[in-house]
Amino acid sequence: MSNPPKQMRATVKLMMNSVFTKSREQFFLPSNVIYLDGNSLGALPKAVVQRMQQVVGEQWGQDLIRSWNTHAWIELPQRVGAKIARLVGASPDSVIAADSTSLNIYKLLLSTLSMRPGRRIIISDIGNFPTDLYIAQGIVQLLGNQHELILSETSALADTIAAHGEDVAVVMLTQVDYRTGALHDIEHMTRKIHQVGALAIWDLAHSAGIVPLALEAWGVDFAVGCGYKYLCGGPGAPAFAYIHPRYHPDLAQNTLPVALSGWMGHSKPFDFDPYYHPSPDLRQLLVGTPAVLSLSALDTALDVFDGLDMAVVRQESLALTTRFIELMEPIAEQYEFALVTPRDPHQRGSQVSYGSDYGYHIVQALIQAGVVGDFRAPNIMRFGFTPLYISLDDVAEAVARFAAVMQQGAWRDQGLARLAVT
Amino acid sequence: MSNPPKQMRATVKLMMNSVFTKSREQFFLPSNVIYLDGNSLGALPKAVVQRMQQVVGEQWGQDLIRSWNTHAWIELPQRVGAKIARLVGASPDSVIAADSTSLNIYKLLLSTLSMRPGRRIIISDIGNFPTDLYIAQGIVQLLGNQHELILSETSALADTIAAHGEDVAVVMLTQVDYRTGALHDIEHMTRKIHQVGALAIWDLAHSAGIVPLALEAWGVDFAVGCGYKYLCGGPGAPAFAYIHPRYHPDLAQNTLPVALSGWMGHSKPFDFDPYYHPSPDLRQLLVGTPAVLSLSALDTALDVFDGLDMAVVRQESLALTTRFIELMEPIAEQYEFALVTPRDPHQRGSQVSYGSDYGYHIVQALIQAGVVGDFRAPNIMRFGFTPLYISLDDVAEAVARFAAVMQQGAWRDQGLARLAVT
Repeated sequence: MSNPPKQMRATVKLMMNSVFTKSREQFFLPSNVIYLDGNSLGALPKAVVQRMQQVVGEQWGQDLIRSWNTHAWIELPQRVGAKIARLVGASPDSVIAADSTSLNIYKLLLSTLSMRPGRRIIISDIGNFPTDLYIAQGIVQLLGNQHELILSETSALADTIAAHGEDVAVVMLTQVDYRTGALHDIEHMTRKIHQVGALAIWDLAHSAGIVPLALEAWGVDFAVGCGYKYLCGGPGAPAFAYIHPRYHPDLAQNTLPVALSGWMGHSKPFDFDPYYHPSPDLRQLLVGTPAVLSLSALDTALDVFDGLDMAVVRQESLALTTRFIELMEPIAEQYEFALVTPRDPHQRGSQVSYGSDYGYHIVQALIQAGVVGDFRAPNIMRFGFTPLYISLDDVAEAVARFAAVMQQGAWRDQGLARLAVT
Repeated sequence: MSNPPKQMRATVKLMMNSVFTKSREQFFLPSNVIYLDGNSLGALPKAVVQRMQQVVGEQWGQDLIRSWNTHAWIELPQRVGAKIARLVGASPDSVIAADSTSLNIYKLLLSTLSMRPGRRIIISDIGNFPTDLYIAQGIVQLLGNQHELILSETSALADTIAAHGEDVAVVMLTQVDYRTGALHDIEHMTRKIHQVGALAIWDLAHSAGIVPLALEAWGVDFAVGCGYKYLCGGPGAPAFAYIHPRYHPDLAQNTLPVALSGWMGHSKPFDFDPYYHPSPDLRQLLVGTPAVLSLSALDTALDVFDGLDMAVVRQESLALTTRFIELMEPIAEQYEFALVTPRDPHQRGSQVSYGSDYGYHIVQALIQAGVVGDFRAPNIMRFGFTPLYISLDDVAEAVARFAAVMQQGAWRDQGLARLAVT
């Protein structure tokens, strides 16, 4: 993404300030806490509180079974999907909300393998989020070990794909590495994948709602993503799945096997036909009865993106991570933190991670000081940023507290105490 | 179940009255509505309203990511499972709450097929709830049509099982038929299934929380059930899965393939190991991040069963359906409704169904009159009963309104109008 010309910057900054001041007011955040863990669990949009009262008290309590129609519960997966579609650069009927990220990967991976019969290689990144890898391992075993999952180092991915060429059925990658925060160039990598005739499944867990995406324009075949990180849908929120319009005719003609053929994926679920005939569209990714409470929370949470331009979100997100890295510089140097997130803003998502042997204890001490990040084994301290509820002032305050925590040394006592017993 | 001796009946009735008066106070029900559709969506336990405010406002909003530990979100699937276990006659670690009924059938059916290699027949009931059949059809296709799904008439099930003998891998049945309300004798049928060396998967969608169950004592291998019917967990509530303790060593020794190998089923999910090693217990049925909002609602809903003896629930449930059938007798005769639910109380669950060509229109007219039942194609009017929030007085009032609706004839105008245009 190129920077705007100098004379425009002041205007853009003013606009961003007003945009994000308004968006910050839409979130509930605990007092005296700087929440840098929205990459794990997004903060609570205030409007969700009221929506949950409505859906529980009025819709379930009062209107009961009729709500499936009168409150359109039955359409929640598509309605929520359409809202997410705008954020990921897809047409409204190319995205559907359902189940978990893991289950959606399962559905799409089984489909892609059937679309590339005779090709036996699945490629992923050794640093991919483990559940994606576990699901692939389960499928390989289920299909009688005819396929092989190859886990490549990130830097060697393009070479690994080229080396296996026409043996590659599918490449499944997560755009932003959950530990390092490194960002894949989806368009470029998808082209590499297509060059060998393979299909691409992208996991957008750490990008939907924070990184501008143009899935359809980039020709991305399939994608999944998480509802509870930057999309702020609440703990364990439903996930989403995307299928490029070029495959919609296959859905309509029922040429793709449906991995998980539940009644909500049937073309006429309320006919109670004993034989499965899949819905001619993305609804064939649905399985059981929609999780109305969780879907309703996500539905309302997504309204915080109304009127937000993802390019502007990205610009401010990079301003936040850039400022954090700059201000952290002396601390990182003094305490020998290794910045594992790329310094080049175009190569990172919206988190900043440092490696430190004392990482676990430092993160605990920071949380005590009201700076909430998290720790990922073996030694990674992660800090996630979203302009929707984090400002440049918050970044400065977080770093000031970080410095104080390091100087007070509580982490060191904890850390050494822990080291002493292990 | 035998009736209590005469001298005990008055005492039992008194006890039931006080028990269920108390339980009815725990539910929110709209005024002037008699809700006979708890077999589709259970009514709202009042305590759920407060729990949802807590989990959204305080746990998510205030404590954010820390809630996974401090509010034990991560343990919800087991905690909720243990509560359900008591209701179905299982030990606490034999039941887990997760995903949907459809997905849980998928997981267990794949396991059972791997436990009976070489056996190619899956038997079910042609009247089984369609999603169970769809899932089985999907699995047969996925595994390359090596298996065959045989759909038997209910009355011929025992013969069908015996006829296919050692070819039968698994029999999957729903205890209470969703249309007719007919009840299988699980213990007896499981014995028939075991006689040919096959495994049993029971779907308890219409029995958990209303019919006394003794899954472990009856030797039931596997079971699934629904969280949003008699368990009152809310629309699209998580479902549950049960595995008999005799198979727990197989879980521990990892000898059963895990169909859906997501990170929550890993033995150490927070080690972020790139290779899947299943949890040594029922947690290997978990896939993605737990749906905390939905699980929390179900968790609190289950507290309405605290102190309730399922034998007493059953006795009152039969009193309700028996009274309904008795009082409906003249209406059924006059308007030629066919009672499709067994008259013998020991052969039915907790619903009463009638067939009528005008069924759809009558159900609509009843709903207008504040008697909420539902319609199932092709011609079934269903009425579900639970003593937890429906009394004998409600039954009498429902039938009085039914009689009035039939006499006023609004259904007939609707019905004929509809017939005229089709």
